[in-house]
Amino acid sequence: MVLAILGGGQLARMLALAAAPLGVRCRFLDPDPAAPAGHIAELVQGAYDDPHALQRLVAGAKVVTFEFENVPVATTEWLQQHAGVQVRPHPRALATGQDRLLEKQLFARLGMAVPEYRIAGTLAELQAAVAAVGAPCIIKTRRLGYDGRGQVRLRPGPELDAAIVTAHAELTRGYTAGLIVERFVPFRRELSVLAARSAHGAVAVYPLVENEHEGGILRRSRAPAPAVAPAVQQAAIDFVHALLRELDYIGVLAVELFDLGGQLVANEMAPRVHNSGHWTIEGSMCSQFENHVRAVLGLPLGDPAMAGGGHATMINHIGQLPDRETLLRLPGVHAHAYGKTGRAGRKVGHSTVVGTGRELVDAAAQRVIALPPGATDWPAGS
Amino acid sequence: MVLAILGGGQLARMLALAAAPLGVRCRFLDPDPAAPAGHIAELVQGAYDDPHALQRLVAGAKVVTFEFENVPVATTEWLQQHAGVQVRPHPRALATGQDRLLEKQLFARLGMAVPEYRIAGTLAELQAAVAAVGAPCIIKTRRLGYDGRGQVRLRPGPELDAAIVTAHAELTRGYTAGLIVERFVPFRRELSVLAARSAHGAVAVYPLVENEHEGGILRRSRAPAPAVAPAVQQAAIDFVHALLRELDYIGVLAVELFDLGGQLVANEMAPRVHNSGHWTIEGSMCSQFENHVRAVLGLPLGDPAMAGGGHATMINHIGQLPDRETLLRLPGVHAHAYGKTGRAGRKVGHSTVVGTGRELVDAAAQRVIALPPGATDWPAGS
Repeated sequence: MVLAILGGGQLARMLALAAAPLGVRCRFLDPDPAAPAGHIAELVQGAYDDPHALQRLVAGAKVVTFEFENVPVATTEWLQQHAGVQVRPHPRALATGQDRLLEKQLFARLGMAVPEYRIAGTLAELQAAVAAVGAPCIIKTRRLGYDGRGQVRLRPGPELDAAIVTAHAELTRGYTAGLIVERFVPFRRELSVLAARSAHGAVAVYPLVENEHEGGILRRSRAPAPAVAPAVQQAAIDFVHALLRELDYIGVLAVELFDLGGQLVANEMAPRVHNSGHWTIEGSMCSQFENHVRAVLGLPLGDPAMAGGGHATMINHIGQLPDRETLLRLPGVHAHAYGKTGRAGRKVGHSTVVGTGRELVDAAAQRVIALPPGATDWPAGS
Repeated sequence: MVLAILGGGQLARMLALAAAPLGVRCRFLDPDPAAPAGHIAELVQGAYDDPHALQRLVAGAKVVTFEFENVPVATTEWLQQHAGVQVRPHPRALATGQDRLLEKQLFARLGMAVPEYRIAGTLAELQAAVAAVGAPCIIKTRRLGYDGRGQVRLRPGPELDAAIVTAHAELTRGYTAGLIVERFVPFRRELSVLAARSAHGAVAVYPLVENEHEGGILRRSRAPAPAVAPAVQQAAIDFVHALLRELDYIGVLAVELFDLGGQLVANEMAPRVHNSGHWTIEGSMCSQFENHVRAVLGLPLGDPAMAGGGHATMINHIGQLPDRETLLRLPGVHAHAYGKTGRAGRKVGHSTVVGTGRELVDAAAQRVIALPPGATDWPAGS
């Protein structure tokens, strides 16, 4: 059984590692010949809009999925209509997850609070949008943003007008799909909720996660999120259930939420496995990767409950890996290198600490964060 | 970093799945082009004594290991002397693990009880050996036996003489490396102990496992083995420490022991990862596969303590897999298909149940054993 995957990054790689024990082989399409998933299974190198490459990707497969939301929707529609494969999640979920406006409209329609926002194209529209929403605010590209790219924060003050001009120039360079201005939400923390929905409509929701970012990039996720009020927990679960149903979703969906201290505001969704769910590999009974594979192939879902002691913290390694020897000496730590070349701001691996108490796990995670950068080379490609 | 592995079966496949997150790619040598490890990483197809294939296997690698003990010792010596790679574990450990006589002599030298035995070559020698040891006894080939092959049990009675003649003809067909006759040990159960030793001499011992066989093939392993007396536990740990030190061993070593109700008798050792350690993937903090990779590459060992609730049971799937849908619906069960074609007596996968109580885990394991055979096809190769 072959599962075709658009994209060959670390998410695809971890999907393939989870798929193998289920008797499922993956095949990837990626423009980059060094895409890290290619170390684990067959990589078709090609563009996402190359029909020949797409045909090679799905040869012998009944299902195709994607590891990131910036795959062209037209590609997934073509695959569904002309290549005889099911695209899961459905292209409509992909289209919604690609566009911050559609996303917010959907969230609001389902009764979830969203930050106040305006859309804009021209500089004049942007100026009007910022004036309407008010500073502090965040200007984002409607499409193609990730890991803090494609967004600019604006603060109130005498330099606001100049900052709008600069931001417009920066964000529209080679990009024409429009901007969105969001009022800054004074959140206490960011939470995320991940859930899987099977082809038969069954849903598995993972415990809520608390996320910390640095420079717009996820740095640490703690699961279960500490001190979540039962009403907040229930609101998040109800919301993800509503989203999954509304999108007739198949696969894993991640939703980022701002916690304002008892009230939730929806930030974004990702129609795919998500960085804030990497802890599930060791920290849950069935990981987000295995559950995504199970879901898209029409298999029953696995148990999303916590395992491994009941607490987990995931730390991203950004730009470079810590020294491998030192890392592997830490007890209770599971290392994950992605086989990528280090570069500033690039996610090259993560580590997950599991344990029986939040304080113990926090302390171990702190030791991981404090590790010296990698003196040894541990890319998979050498 | 490339790790070369002699053999491309399910053990090699699980080594590769454990190696990937450490940034380590594996490359395998196997005569079978359909060897299941080839689904995960590069497979060199060739004979174990083909110098060209061996050169391709170790290109760019500093270390070569093996996934089974029937690799020719001469191959590992040649690799060490002529191909510039370290063979780990050392060829001497391999030579000992291949030969039931050398194994028993080593065990006895280290003060461990072994079954009474005699070696034999000709039929006359075999008759004398059986007379000396007494029936019931087991005749085994000194070399190349596995999963119940290469052995015959003899019972006392009027048909003993004829049975010896038949056994000799059967066991020496195309095989000349000698036989060994072992007195049958009236054991209460079989235990195994797995341990890893690092290149720097550190040792990690996994909790003792209780094993049940059917038709000479491992059917179920329970970890930790129930009701092990502290003295038995200590004797097993001391013995595996002594073995590792004596062999200057690097990697994972498995030792099968007969438990006579408080007294241990050593059965066999396997100088490699072992079927009775498959539960460690989900049931321990660091699996036997990851610890073998860590050990042979000179990295620090991981924690062999129980994880995932403290109890684990592994069930082998022999000849065919259970129905995938039904299996995946069972809570707490982790499925492992090897991507092999089903055939009577062939290990095609295993499932591991983890949980917080022995009775719960036993009950779940019983449900796995009772599953109907696979109506769906789930080889990885289709």
